[in-house]
Amino acid sequence: MTSVTATAATPAGTLGPALTGVVPPVCTPLTPDLEVDVASLLRLVDFQIAGGVDGLFILGSSSEVAFLPDAHRAVVVDTVLRHVGGQVPVLIGAIDMTTLRVLDHARRAARAGCAGIVVTAPFYTRTHPAEIERHLRGIAEQCEAPLYAYDLPVSVHSNLDHEMLLRLAADGVLAGLKDSTGDDAGLRDLIVARNDAGLTGFSVLTGSELTVDNALRMGADGVVPGLGNVDPHGYATLYAHARAGDWDRAASEQERLLRLMRIVRAAPAGRMGRGSSALGAFKTALHLRGVIDHPVTAPPQIPLDEAETAYVRQILVTAGLL
Amino acid sequence: MTSVTATAATPAGTLGPALTGVVPPVCTPLTPDLEVDVASLLRLVDFQIAGGVDGLFILGSSSEVAFLPDAHRAVVVDTVLRHVGGQVPVLIGAIDMTTLRVLDHARRAARAGCAGIVVTAPFYTRTHPAEIERHLRGIAEQCEAPLYAYDLPVSVHSNLDHEMLLRLAADGVLAGLKDSTGDDAGLRDLIVARNDAGLTGFSVLTGSELTVDNALRMGADGVVPGLGNVDPHGYATLYAHARAGDWDRAASEQERLLRLMRIVRAAPAGRMGRGSSALGAFKTALHLRGVIDHPVTAPPQIPLDEAETAYVRQILVTAGLL
Amino acid sequence: MTSVTATAATPAGTLGPALTGVVPPVCTPLTPDLEVDVASLLRLVDFQIAGGVDGLFILGSSSEVAFLPDAHRAVVVDTVLRHVGGQVPVLIGAIDMTTLRVLDHARRAARAGCAGIVVTAPFYTRTHPAEIERHLRGIAEQCEAPLYAYDLPVSVHSNLDHEMLLRLAADGVLAGLKDSTGDDAGLRDLIVARNDAGLTGFSVLTGSELTVDNALRMGADGVVPGLGNVDPHGYATLYAHARAGDWDRAASEQERLLRLMRIVRAAPAGRMGRGSSALGAFKTALHLRGVIDHPVTAPPQIPLDEAETAYVRQILVTAGLL
Amino acid sequence: MTSVTATAATPAGTLGPALTGVVPPVCTPLTPDLEVDVASLLRLVDFQIAGGVDGLFILGSSSEVAFLPDAHRAVVVDTVLRHVGGQVPVLIGAIDMTTLRVLDHARRAARAGCAGIVVTAPFYTRTHPAEIERHLRGIAEQCEAPLYAYDLPVSVHSNLDHEMLLRLAADGVLAGLKDSTGDDAGLRDLIVARNDAGLTGFSVLTGSELTVDNALRMGADGVVPGLGNVDPHGYATLYAHARAGDWDRAASEQERLLRLMRIVRAAPAGRMGRGSSALGAFKTALHLRGVIDHPVTAPPQIPLDEAETAYVRQILVTAGLL
Repeated sequence: MTSVTATAATPAGTLGPALTGVVPPVCTPLTPDLEVDVASLLRLVDFQIAGGVDGLFILGSSSEVAFLPDAHRAVVVDTVLRHVGGQVPVLIGAIDMTTLRVLDHARRAARAGCAGIVVTAPFYTRTHPAEIERHLRGIAEQCEAPLYAYDLPVSVHSNLDHEMLLRLAADGVLAGLKDSTGDDAGLRDLIVARNDAGLTGFSVLTGSELTVDNALRMGADGVVPGLGNVDPHGYATLYAHARAGDWDRAASEQERLLRLMRIVRAAPAGRMGRGSSALGAFKTALHLRGVIDHPVTAPPQIPLDEAETAYVRQILVTAGLL
Repeated sequence: MTSVTATAATPAGTLGPALTGVVPPVCTPLTPDLEVDVASLLRLVDFQIAGGVDGLFILGSSSEVAFLPDAHRAVVVDTVLRHVGGQVPVLIGAIDMTTLRVLDHARRAARAGCAGIVVTAPFYTRTHPAEIERHLRGIAEQCEAPLYAYDLPVSVHSNLDHEMLLRLAADGVLAGLKDSTGDDAGLRDLIVARNDAGLTGFSVLTGSELTVDNALRMGADGVVPGLGNVDPHGYATLYAHARAGDWDRAASEQERLLRLMRIVRAAPAGRMGRGSSALGAFKTALHLRGVIDHPVTAPPQIPLDEAETAYVRQILVTAGLL
Repeated sequence: MTSVTATAATPAGTLGPALTGVVPPVCTPLTPDLEVDVASLLRLVDFQIAGGVDGLFILGSSSEVAFLPDAHRAVVVDTVLRHVGGQVPVLIGAIDMTTLRVLDHARRAARAGCAGIVVTAPFYTRTHPAEIERHLRGIAEQCEAPLYAYDLPVSVHSNLDHEMLLRLAADGVLAGLKDSTGDDAGLRDLIVARNDAGLTGFSVLTGSELTVDNALRMGADGVVPGLGNVDPHGYATLYAHARAGDWDRAASEQERLLRLMRIVRAAPAGRMGRGSSALGAFKTALHLRGVIDHPVTAPPQIPLDEAETAYVRQILVTAGLL
Repeated sequence: MTSVTATAATPAGTLGPALTGVVPPVCTPLTPDLEVDVASLLRLVDFQIAGGVDGLFILGSSSEVAFLPDAHRAVVVDTVLRHVGGQVPVLIGAIDMTTLRVLDHARRAARAGCAGIVVTAPFYTRTHPAEIERHLRGIAEQCEAPLYAYDLPVSVHSNLDHEMLLRLAADGVLAGLKDSTGDDAGLRDLIVARNDAGLTGFSVLTGSELTVDNALRMGADGVVPGLGNVDPHGYATLYAHARAGDWDRAASEQERLLRLMRIVRAAPAGRMGRGSSALGAFKTALHLRGVIDHPVTAPPQIPLDEAETAYVRQILVTAGLL
């Protein structure tokens, strides 16, 4: 296999051991009475691993982490970590508003034995670059697991400064980044700066699931694709093509996945939020594919109706997934 | 006493029993090791009640609710409710991202015996008016305490629709609103519509602490002033003047409080977020006034330094509070 | 007559001669082939003056200045200034993206003999506080007419810093401000700071047409109400009550105007932009009242349809204006 | 030469004749007294053409179009079109707030004989998708030159809907798009949809100058790089490598240009706006390279100081351009 470092312009250097490849943010199946559907969750984890993913990210945005009470989060962590048993690394999101609240989640995650904790900038409160840095340093000091920063401006309404990220990488505070900014130029700038600084052990994962081939060519280490829930094999294939230097096949697979992604537009504009529509579509697709028992999303999200479900089904058929 | 309904243009109708007057969002004093400073909290509560406030709002934004782990929140609820013992009504914020998480807080608050639960629109997730309505209805169905909506776009990045608020008021879902939009024209439009609909039992409280006299003239039922922590007597005086129809004295008192509010600009632009500066200034002022033992704010907020503390002190002196 | 300075908390000091009272931003009537409808414009100006306004603001946002080519702007300036002939002061908007473009408009306006030029912060380009100050100083240096700053974040996506405004007032750069931020707390803070600095010749006009009584009580010098196009007499009445210290009558009139303002919601949400709906409603109302010949708005605004026109008519009837 | 259509996943179909390749948005050199520096402009145009560009875009954002009065714009159009004399196609920006104002510019541009007119969504006014469509259709109806839409949310604060763009392409209203959203996933979605619809004559040009290789692989037709002013040869080389299917060399060249792009960070954060810094750096670099006589930018932009100029010089030296 020709690695990407041989063909891409940016030599990726020595990657850290933990985090490369396809790391889907695992959906959290729910029962109709809004408990974690453990049986479905186990099937979904098996489906991901059988699909060839390189790791799992639980309690991320696609996991409806913002919708899950702490007790649900605990069930997810316990269920997945026990079931995976070290087959692949598992990242856990510690998503909450500010440092002390995040630490509560992060400590529980660290105790569970995960491969890394994923945290965003503070939200709800108006934040500031100096406070974001203080936040990340504060969490790292109090928590033993490797720490990954999550750049997600659509949710937290601030961005992570790239100089700060590399400073924290150099100081051993951060193990990596999940970049969900959608800003591929910024991603490239960060990767070039990272490589120039010799910080290639700092994993850069893109959350932009429609330009994964580009991100990997630019030197990203992996991808955290929400759509990977529905088609993990597709993303594993894309990644394998990229790692083999077969960029045309990678692009073809990426375009197939781009067409599949249109399931997130199931709901007509204005009937619900885009989050409801996207998470509803992922779960509906998993339900139609027989992986999970119920397409239930947590309140106050609005469920897809029959026509919207039929729309998802049609795209799955076209994509050869049904 | 001449009530405001006699002098203002908008007859306020039959107010609900619970919520009128000055209801400060009580700061949460912390110890240097970041635990709730219970002794200081008790003193602060006594200071508020002695200052003449009509109610207390705990676990609101000025309480650093976004910074407090659940265990801290529980201590605050327990401490304050037990100590107040029904002297004044106590509202409790149930601030979290979405319905199920909010319900965990709301149920605990309801069990504690509060006068009302305060909740925002969903945040972190991208939301939608239909989801906000579903959120509020879902919480009200599952929680016995009166429910107050909290319109706080600076934190949650969406607004509450006024027609929805009045629909929920008419349906008995909502008992009131805390309006922290800063949009006094919108506030007036809501109050006029509320009065036209005969829904005057729906309490409208303004969070705009610098235009309280205006809000009361327009028919608002009360105010939730963050600055009230520092000078509860000032807001009680303002409110009393307003209720007596002495609008010139109310305006004078409001202008005095406006000058006091400049403590929130203690930190130079760019050194920290505006939230850090404001909450830091409130706590520093309370510390300087001898009400709380430490001016500590929760991480990742940046503490005021000596010069910033001196700035706060100078304003307190000028205001006659030191 | 008891002036506001006798009853309000803030003594207004020595006001500048030019700009107090009701200064409506005059709509620009158009013909069906999108030329300036001069006859209608003259009638509209007469209607305003007969209604008792204290000044006129042409080429502001409510004048569709953003929609008018330079030739149209010239016709408006020439038509109005010649017709008014000094009966009331006329302000002219010099609305364009940056300094040199604004100067082209400002010089033409100054040559026409207006009472003042109104300019916003730069827009389209990403701006900065230091550039905004440079912009305002640059225009003032090159243009002899008194300069008014226009704080309009909804259009220009930045705010004017209050310390800068007062610095420019002290330096003789600015004669006043039109505040269309909708932030009445900020407005009060500015007015208090202005008065404390002895800069009461710096006119502060509010563009918030639903809280005019409040603004006047707080010490504002006047109002620039878009809705004044439709009911200039209403705003003149409100202003007179305020100046007479009869705040209850002022509030009643303001509430009547607030109900009239609902014409701007003529179009159902989602059918057009809020600007189209508001300007369309103002012009439709003026057409229905017989003041202008056509309710035409400039492209690409969407015209009100029959149902929306009927809605406007109904509100006018209710308001006693038809 | 192996065309990109042979190697990329997306067959590019039949491209329109006009617009492929590197089309830099040409800076507008100014004299110290803020007139168009015609001699420098001619040298800059020659420098671009000698550098191997495929077209020129005048009066775009990098041309400081927002800062140029109409008389300056006319000089630029006249100077460039006469000088180029058909060697390469020239696009002209018709940047103004709304339809009638844009039409004034567009008609002048069409009369000058350009290859296309470039227009944004309405700005300053609050717009709406239906109004944006009406705007573009209205301009196309009144103007004979091919029309290109310019998606530039950072300036106009709205986005162009992709379904609308393809509808307008199918209807012959639009000849192409300049995409300056920075959203490469969205760009790919548009290109795939365009190709699926057989609308490959609709030119898609990216304005994201740091991911040009990616955009071309995804099927974009060309690039409009602001940085191309400083190094047109670099972008021409990048494009040639891409068209030859040599993606590794394309990526290397792109990374070199990415490092060069850091000149836009010449000014420390907070001293000026990012636009001032970027345009100042482009002009300073052109001045240092001897192409233009003055690094002057239009007011109210803040000029780079000595230290900032030295920073630009250092990067040019490192990049081998000095």
